[in-house]
Amino acid sequence: MLKDEDLKFISHCLPFLKHIDKSDLDIVYSACSKSILQPGEIIMNEEKECRGIVAVNSGQLRAYFESEDGKEITLYRLLPNDVCILTASCVLKNITFEITLEVEKKSTVFSIPAKIWSTLSEKYSSVKEYSIALVNRRFSDVMWVMEQMVSKNMGQRVASFLLEQAELEHSRTISVTHEEISKNLGTAREVISRILKYFENDGLLKLSRGRITLTDIGRLKKLGR
Amino acid sequence: MLKDEDLKFISHCLPFLKHIDKSDLDIVYSACSKSILQPGEIIMNEEKECRGIVAVNSGQLRAYFESEDGKEITLYRLLPNDVCILTASCVLKNITFEITLEVEKKSTVFSIPAKIWSTLSEKYSSVKEYSIALVNRRFSDVMWVMEQMVSKNMGQRVASFLLEQAELEHSRTISVTHEEISKNLGTAREVISRILKYFENDGLLKLSRGRITLTDIGRLKKLGR
Repeated sequence: MLKDEDLKFISHCLPFLKHIDKSDLDIVYSACSKSILQPGEIIMNEEKECRGIVAVNSGQLRAYFESEDGKEITLYRLLPNDVCILTASCVLKNITFEITLEVEKKSTVFSIPAKIWSTLSEKYSSVKEYSIALVNRRFSDVMWVMEQMVSKNMGQRVASFLLEQAELEHSRTISVTHEEISKNLGTAREVISRILKYFENDGLLKLSRGRITLTDIGRLKKLGR
Repeated sequence: MLKDEDLKFISHCLPFLKHIDKSDLDIVYSACSKSILQPGEIIMNEEKECRGIVAVNSGQLRAYFESEDGKEITLYRLLPNDVCILTASCVLKNITFEITLEVEKKSTVFSIPAKIWSTLSEKYSSVKEYSIALVNRRFSDVMWVMEQMVSKNMGQRVASFLLEQAELEHSRTISVTHEEISKNLGTAREVISRILKYFENDGLLKLSRGRITLTDIGRLKKLGR
């Protein structure tokens, strides 16, 4: 059973709920589940059942695409108040791919089952509109990632990644391994290690076990642009 | 003024038109324009006005994404009966990227202005549903392209591209320059020339000026898979 503050959060995150009938709202509220998730958990992938709509109350999750040969490409991150609809791909017509959703920081999320979403979407125009806007946003995110993939060399992509990570962690020192960076950027660990070593020699950052300290944000920004 | 056969084609291509009021249908029909387009024409890109919904009656068009530094990535092709909605990106909420649409073969297309589409979409649930399904399909197309970008080496991508091209041209001999292949795959012309030379030495194809003849489809398929 969800608490009042939970219901308040859901209504805030999914504004179209204001426009649906009381009886349907009750169905949504009673079907909605709250989960507390630990870093490293995979809450959705090809093998798992469709998770439904996910609204993030706190924490951080990473949505990525896994290629057939196991390479990962980070598509976007979910932060508090973000909603993910690709986790309901089973009820989205013509979506033929599956994303993987991994918990990066301890998170609290609310999920609405895909089936309920599907029913709402059939019945309410406002829900359809919300779906379009949300899918479109993710589509734009993915196009941005694609742009990064082709238009920057790997050095630039690493610089962008490090800056993004520093912003997320609110710190110049970020906890990330070479392995993790290579997975995020869909390349080999050796390539990343070489680039990081190069950056260190160039005075852009300092490497230590499992951590990277950015020492020249200005030049990294110039490089990552 | 469109002919009866034109209207018949539009209704066939855009099935939701069956569900809209006669008065709105008249608006759509009178705003819809027919264009005959020549190969090489760019009918939509960042600089041009939003084209609206495009329905292809005959011919072939290529939708691609152009990165800031001028690299092209082919996202999908439009063949007869295909409809493109990303050409109406100006009225699609949260779509922040622009595609370029290039005519590859002499084409006849019908366009419905973006503004009319937007009005229809606000008013009719069936139009919203159609939009979702179409955007989702293009999103899936793009994810497939992304999968190709990361999971295959360039040799495999070239093999896939040549086979696709042969299928489109209904011929083992395809008219394509190394430059065009490199643009399609977002890489340097030299890289493509090297791979093609390698394929020729390997007996997979024969190169001649502006043309490539596939001599071992079976092995190319195996390679491209």
